[in-house]
Amino acid sequence: MNTTEYLVTGMTCGHCEISVREEVQEVSGVQGVEVSHRTGRLVVTGNQPVQDAAVIAALEAAGYQGVRSK
Amino acid sequence: MNTTEYLVTGMTCGHCEISVREEVQEVSGVQGVEVSHRTGRLVVTGNQPVQDAAVIAALEAAGYQGVRSK
Repeated sequence: MNTTEYLVTGMTCGHCEISVREEVQEVSGVQGVEVSHRTGRLVVTGNQPVQDAAVIAALEAAGYQGVRSK
Repeated sequence: MNTTEYLVTGMTCGHCEISVREEVQEVSGVQGVEVSHRTGRLVVTGNQPVQDAAVIAALEAAGYQGVRSK
């Protein structure tokens, strides 16, 4: 299982987490999404490596900025 | 046209405004809803007086607390 982490800015509540989750789940290869508006931490898991650019584009589609952190 | 105003706490973003709007629009007699997470101000308009208790219950259903302010 591949795990990548991102730091996301701009989430303020649970609705924001839902928006992020919905977009990131659509990214090719993504099987699991954990996200917290309190920490800004997004953990993405998949059987194959997930493209950072696709995750970051998904975050932008949801209205947020993110960077790979791990 | 009757206008009532409420002060709502806990909204942090546009998603919160949407949640409030959706619930308050369902209240009997409500024709218009203006809401801002920045100010916490909710303005409800209707042709007939709207029941405060129903508006406040709708806010609680959306996950927020509100009080009549005007």
